Amino acid sequence: MKQSQLFTKTLKSLPKEEISINAQLLIRAGFIDKLMAGVYSFLPLGFFVLKKIENIIREEMKNISAQEILMPALHPKENWQVTKRWDILDVLFKLKSREEKEYALGSTHEEIVVPLTKKFILSWKDLPVFIFQIQDKFRDELRAKSGLLRGREFIMKDLYSFHLDEKDLDDYYKKVSDAYFRIFERCQIAEKTYLTLASGGTFSKYSHEFQTISSAGEDIIFICQNCDLAINKEIKEEIKECPNCGSKNFKEEKSIEVGNIFKLGTKYSQPFGLTVKDKNGKEKPVIMGCYGIGLGRLMGVIVEVWHDEKGIIWPSAVAPFDVHLIQIENTQKVKKTAEKLYKDLQKKGVEVLYDDREDKTAGEKLVDCDLIGIPIRIVVSEKTLKRNCVEIKRREKEKIKLIRIRYLPQFFKIKNQKSKIKNI
Amino acid sequence: MKQSQLFTKTLKSLPKEEISINAQLLIRAGFIDKLMAGVYSFLPLGFFVLKKIENIIREEMKNISAQEILMPALHPKENWQVTKRWDILDVLFKLKSREEKEYALGSTHEEIVVPLTKKFILSWKDLPVFIFQIQDKFRDELRAKSGLLRGREFIMKDLYSFHLDEKDLDDYYKKVSDAYFRIFERCQIAEKTYLTLASGGTFSKYSHEFQTISSAGEDIIFICQNCDLAINKEIKEEIKECPNCGSKNFKEEKSIEVGNIFKLGTKYSQPFGLTVKDKNGKEKPVIMGCYGIGLGRLMGVIVEVWHDEKGIIWPSAVAPFDVHLIQIENTQKVKKTAEKLYKDLQKKGVEVLYDDREDKTAGEKLVDCDLIGIPIRIVVSEKTLKRNCVEIKRREKEKIKLIRIRYLPQFFKIKNQKSKIKNI
Repeated sequence: MKQSQLFTKTLKSLPKEEISINAQLLIRAGFIDKLMAGVYSFLPLGFFVLKKIENIIREEMKNISAQEILMPALHPKENWQVTKRWDILDVLFKLKSREEKEYALGSTHEEIVVPLTKKFILSWKDLPVFIFQIQDKFRDELRAKSGLLRGREFIMKDLYSFHLDEKDLDDYYKKVSDAYFRIFERCQIAEKTYLTLASGGTFSKYSHEFQTISSAGEDIIFICQNCDLAINKEIKEEIKECPNCGSKNFKEEKSIEVGNIFKLGTKYSQPFGLTVKDKNGKEKPVIMGCYGIGLGRLMGVIVEVWHDEKGIIWPSAVAPFDVHLIQIENTQKVKKTAEKLYKDLQKKGVEVLYDDREDKTAGEKLVDCDLIGIPIRIVVSEKTLKRNCVEIKRREKEKIKLIRIRYLPQFFKIKNQKSKIKNI
Repeated sequence: MKQSQLFTKTLKSLPKEEISINAQLLIRAGFIDKLMAGVYSFLPLGFFVLKKIENIIREEMKNISAQEILMPALHPKENWQVTKRWDILDVLFKLKSREEKEYALGSTHEEIVVPLTKKFILSWKDLPVFIFQIQDKFRDELRAKSGLLRGREFIMKDLYSFHLDEKDLDDYYKKVSDAYFRIFERCQIAEKTYLTLASGGTFSKYSHEFQTISSAGEDIIFICQNCDLAINKEIKEEIKECPNCGSKNFKEEKSIEVGNIFKLGTKYSQPFGLTVKDKNGKEKPVIMGCYGIGLGRLMGVIVEVWHDEKGIIWPSAVAPFDVHLIQIENTQKVKKTAEKLYKDLQKKGVEVLYDDREDKTAGEKLVDCDLIGIPIRIVVSEKTLKRNCVEIKRREKEKIKLIRIRYLPQFFKIKNQKSKIKNI
C-alpha cells in the first residue's frame, strides 16, 4: 500500500484521558480511534493487525477440529432468565424494543449456544461437539481505562465444547490449552505468558487463565520458579505450595489475562435440558467447556510487550506489513527505484507499506516509521543509490546495513504466500 | 469436510412462524438457526456462504480503492444528537449503562465515521477518501418476518466516500454502482437485479436502489421496458416517463432491495463541521456519499432466486462447497474409493463436502444433498464402481452422467485456488 493513499496519519495529540501505553501508541500511530471509554474503531493499519490475529486464532481452532459459526449479539431476555444470569450478571447491557420486548447484549454466549446445540445433539453419538465464533461482545464495565485491554465492546473468540464424560472434556481441555500457547507463540508473547490457576466456579476446583507479564497488568500472579505454573493472587492465599511440583518458591508479577479456559460441567446444559442418552440408555446432561481469547486485548498486550520509547515493534506474524519502504528525497531516480522495489517485493508476496509521501521530511518519515513499527525498514536515498545500495534495518535493532539492490529480493524467501525474512 | 463431523443436521421441523422461503430452506438445510424474529445464527454451512459473500464484496470494494476499517456498534448518544437523529430515527435501539450513560446501537454509521474522518481530513489534498466496513447493525424493526431479508440484527457492508466537489462524488458514485453490479453478477442475481430510482433525500432528487425481482419482495418496482432503468413505486406517481430514455412502457414487479447508494451531500459533514479549505483558501463542507449492501440479506435473496421444490441451488461462487461427494452403501470398496476421491479433489483445491455417514440411507442422503444445494453431486456406489465409474450431476439439472473415475480430476481445472468446473 502507498502511504500517500492511507487515509489515516500519525497524530501528535492524544485524547487527554488516555493513559494506557497500548492505546497511546495505537492511536498516535493511526491503528485505532477512540470513540469513547472502552470503545474503539480499528483503522486500516489496525484492521490489518486484527485480521492477522484473527487468522492465527482461526487456524489454531481448526487444528483442534472446532467448527466456526456466528451467533447474534442481541439476545432474548428469556434465555438469560433460564440461567438466572439476567439478574446476577452486573456487566450485562439490557435494552428494550419499541414493542417493549427485553434484550441483553451478549457478554458471553452460553445462553445462546446451549439451546442452539440442543437442536442437533440428540444422542451420545453426536458428541463431542466443538464450536467457536469470532464475534463482538459487550460488557458494561465500570472501569475502562486500559485501552484495548478492557473494553465495553470488544471482539472475542469464544469456543464451546460438549462432551459425554469428564475424561473427554479433560482431553480436549488440554488440546485447547496447547492451541492457546501456539497462538501466543505465533504472536510472540508466549515467553512472557503463564498458565495460571484462578478461581474455578462450579465444576473444577480451579479454572485456568493465560497471564502475560506486563507492568500495565491489572492482575497479580505468583509464578512457581521451579515449574512455571502460575497462581492468580485471588486464590494464592489458599495455595501454599505449587499444586504441580510442590515448590514453595514463587515470584510475584503484574500481568494481563490474555485468555481463559473453564470446565463448565453441567452448569449450562442442565438448566436448558441439554441431555443425551448414554450407551446404557441412561439420560445424562452434556458436559461442557468454554474457552475465550479477546482479539483486541491480544493486540493491546502485544503492544504492551513489544514497544520502545519510539513506538511499536510488531512481531512479524501480526505486523500490518512486512516491510516499510521509505523514499527519502523525491528525485526521479529515488522515486523510480522505490517504485520498482515496491512492485518487485509485492510480486514476491512481501507486504509493503511504501512511504511515497512528498510533503514529509526524511526526519518525519523515519519518526513515523518507528512509531508504526513494521519489522523491516528499507530506505531509498540518493546517497546510497550512488553505490547501487539501499539501507535495511530491523525495527528492534540499531544496526543499519547497506545492501546492493540486486541482492535485496534474495532476502525474502517466500513460502505459502507468507514472507519469511532472513536474518539481517 | 466430512459430513459425519458436521455438528448440524438437516431438520424436518421448522419454527412455526417462519413463513419466508429463504429462512425455511436455510433453517431446514442447517445453514442458519433462528434465535428470535429477525435475529439468526449462522451455522457452519451458512458461515461458509457468508464468508464467500464477504470476500466477493471485499474484493470489489478494494477494486474501487476503498480502505477497510471496523467501527463499533455501541455509539454515544451525543453523536446522534448532533444530527438530531437520536429523536427522529424510530428504528434506533437505545440503552443505558449502569452509570446512566446513554448509547445507541448503530443502525448506520454516519454519526461515527464523520467525526472519525474529521481527525484526518485536514485539507483538500486529503480528499477523496473512501472507507468501508463489514459490520453488525441493529434496527428495531416492527415487522421482521422475512427471514434474512429484514433483520433486527444484520451484517452490512457500509461504504462512505468524502469529496471536494460534486463532480468527484458523481464519478465515484458511478464506480460504486458498477462495483455493485459486479458483486451481483458474481452472486448470479445480476440478471434479475435493476438499478432503481427511489426517493432521494437531501442532496440529489433521487437515490438509487438495486432491486432484485422476487415474489418474496416487499417492494414494487416499475421496469422501463426500453432501457431497464427501474422506478420504485414510492416515486412512480411523480414520474410519468423514464428519466433515462423517455419511454412510457413499464412492467410492474415485486422485488427485494439488495443494495442502495445515496448522495448525502453535506447533510452529515455540516453538523459535525467536517470542512476543508479548497484551493482558493475558501472553507467548505466535505461532500459525501454512502453505499450499503446487507450480507445476510444478499444470502437470503440468492436463496429466493435460486431454489426449487427440493431445496437450495447455490451459485458456485457462494456455494459452501464445490462438490457434494456421496458414498452410497458402506462396503469397503465404496468407502475406499470415496475417501480417495475426497482427498484427490481436495488436493486439486476443490472444496468437498463428503457424506460419509453410515447411518443414513441412500434416499436420505440424496434428499439432504438436494436440500443443501451444492453445485456438483458425485455419487459413489457399488453398481457404478463395477464399471469403474461414478455418477456426476449438476444440482440444477436432471441429467446424471456416468464418468470413469480416472477421468474425474480432469473435470476440475484449478486456477488461483478457485475451482473452475467444466460443463457436465
